[in-house]
Amino acid sequence: MRAVVADGAGGPEVLSVQEVPDIEPGPGEVAIEVAATAVNRADTLQRQGFYPPPPGASETIGLECSGTISALGDGVEGWAVGDEVCALLAGGGYASRVVVPAGQVLPVPAGVDLVHAAALPEVACTVWSNVFMVAGLKPEESFLVHGGAGGIGTFAIQLAHALGSQVLTTGGTADKLAFCAGLGADVTINYHDDDFVEVAKSATDGAGVDVILDNMGASYLGRNVSALATEGRLVVIGMQGGSKGELDLGKLLTKRAAVIATSLRGRPVEGKAAIVASVLEHVWPLVADGSIRPIVEQTLPLEEVRRAHELMDAGSHTGKIVLTL
Amino acid sequence: MRAVVADGAGGPEVLSVQEVPDIEPGPGEVAIEVAATAVNRADTLQRQGFYPPPPGASETIGLECSGTISALGDGVEGWAVGDEVCALLAGGGYASRVVVPAGQVLPVPAGVDLVHAAALPEVACTVWSNVFMVAGLKPEESFLVHGGAGGIGTFAIQLAHALGSQVLTTGGTADKLAFCAGLGADVTINYHDDDFVEVAKSATDGAGVDVILDNMGASYLGRNVSALATEGRLVVIGMQGGSKGELDLGKLLTKRAAVIATSLRGRPVEGKAAIVASVLEHVWPLVADGSIRPIVEQTLPLEEVRRAHELMDAGSHTGKIVLTL
Repeated sequence: MRAVVADGAGGPEVLSVQEVPDIEPGPGEVAIEVAATAVNRADTLQRQGFYPPPPGASETIGLECSGTISALGDGVEGWAVGDEVCALLAGGGYASRVVVPAGQVLPVPAGVDLVHAAALPEVACTVWSNVFMVAGLKPEESFLVHGGAGGIGTFAIQLAHALGSQVLTTGGTADKLAFCAGLGADVTINYHDDDFVEVAKSATDGAGVDVILDNMGASYLGRNVSALATEGRLVVIGMQGGSKGELDLGKLLTKRAAVIATSLRGRPVEGKAAIVASVLEHVWPLVADGSIRPIVEQTLPLEEVRRAHELMDAGSHTGKIVLTL
Repeated sequence: MRAVVADGAGGPEVLSVQEVPDIEPGPGEVAIEVAATAVNRADTLQRQGFYPPPPGASETIGLECSGTISALGDGVEGWAVGDEVCALLAGGGYASRVVVPAGQVLPVPAGVDLVHAAALPEVACTVWSNVFMVAGLKPEESFLVHGGAGGIGTFAIQLAHALGSQVLTTGGTADKLAFCAGLGADVTINYHDDDFVEVAKSATDGAGVDVILDNMGASYLGRNVSALATEGRLVVIGMQGGSKGELDLGKLLTKRAAVIATSLRGRPVEGKAAIVASVLEHVWPLVADGSIRPIVEQTLPLEEVRRAHELMDAGSHTGKIVLTL
């Protein structure tokens, strides 16, 4: 099999595609011949040495893939060799073959081709688990997602809009924000020009937003708490603005609000399986009926993995970058 | 009617009992002839001018009382004149008569006398709503409450112990901690001598505690997060150690943990009614069967309200201080 191998930690130049030993599914796992994988922010952190794989996971980068099941481990039920699927991975996606616990495998949604399906598992599981399972966003509530034009953002806007919430998002360019509006964002905020706290308050009659999905961490902590409504929930899933910030507990207490920080990758296998099952039930029908579509900026062959990481590092893309095999 | 009146903000000396105009119940409210009220930390903050009553609440101090219903407002069902009750108040408890929304009234639990019943509503509603309704403590989980010898602490220890959790608590003297152990605390930690993070970890095989109920705020924030288990929940209900502290979001994210801050007093009437109804269903049977008893350090006549506040300010008491009429 082929896989992207990292020659130490560093820039995109450490990555190359090489022949590596084949892997086989263990009990409860399936093997997938990979059609496509997708690039996540976490992949670039792992490449730089900041985000080691959890114990037991593949050393190979890659948190999701699509492809065709080629082998079943002992005890796997509900899947057959030849099924076209996509999967949430703890690692190993940048390869021609992956093995993954059967509970992390999803069917390719109706109306989505196999390559685009690679762009769905990570964002669908991240957004659904955090915004709906953890923060419990309700249709009558408002929702702010930072970085609306990215992979997480484009999915979160579509999902929250489809389920009836007022959607606010931030972004750095007029083009990106126009794209977000087209996906269903009711309020778009250019963070270069406007204070998202003020805009969030004025867009909610002064109440603030009920749920915030944040990828900035410390640098936005104070303003995120300020933007929350009474009984609001801030969910932090990234720390692009640092990890240690000042929390005003008095403000949080007056609002009876919560700050939650989570990560999908570190969850145990059974936790991931519960999320994947919930995504299949609640989110996949919205993909199948066209309410949510995978947003793919660019599709490159796996051999151009360096170029894909350069694009991700540059941060000027919209939606996901997919690598095909 | 008589009520404690504050002559400006300051020490206990600003308080005195005076004749004030009678009050009558509005629609949905009951009037209670007060038998006893109890002193809460928030009362001393209000006396000092730091904790103004929420809009619409009485200016008189006092968050709970017991007594006998003397009048019903329009539309009140389920209560009758002559019923012996206790009640959760937004204010006004330090008086011979209170009016309160009917949803905030509880029967006096079987086996508890009318005076001791005054010591129950605030701690029962605070502990039940935060530890069980908000943080969702489960019997197989561990629970740490800071300041175990206080009103909140003594109730929280008994309730979590009765429902099957491992209970840890902190306190400042060996006597207080022995008392906490007698109430059901499995692990007692003298905060002068020991680091509660280390003790919490060693008592849970290194896992940390699942739920923390905290009254210190900023000064304990970092250590509380360190003491949390994976998917742990820190609930802050007081800020005796300040309101602004550094939050390590990276540590929180690795644990998939939550920091929640709440207050009971500011909740809307319907929110309080939902908590009171849940307390009646889940907590009152445990009081009636003796699993939980009201812990009253001292009972003083209302005329000695200054002395009661001096005792609360000194902080050397165990359990609650009750004022009788």
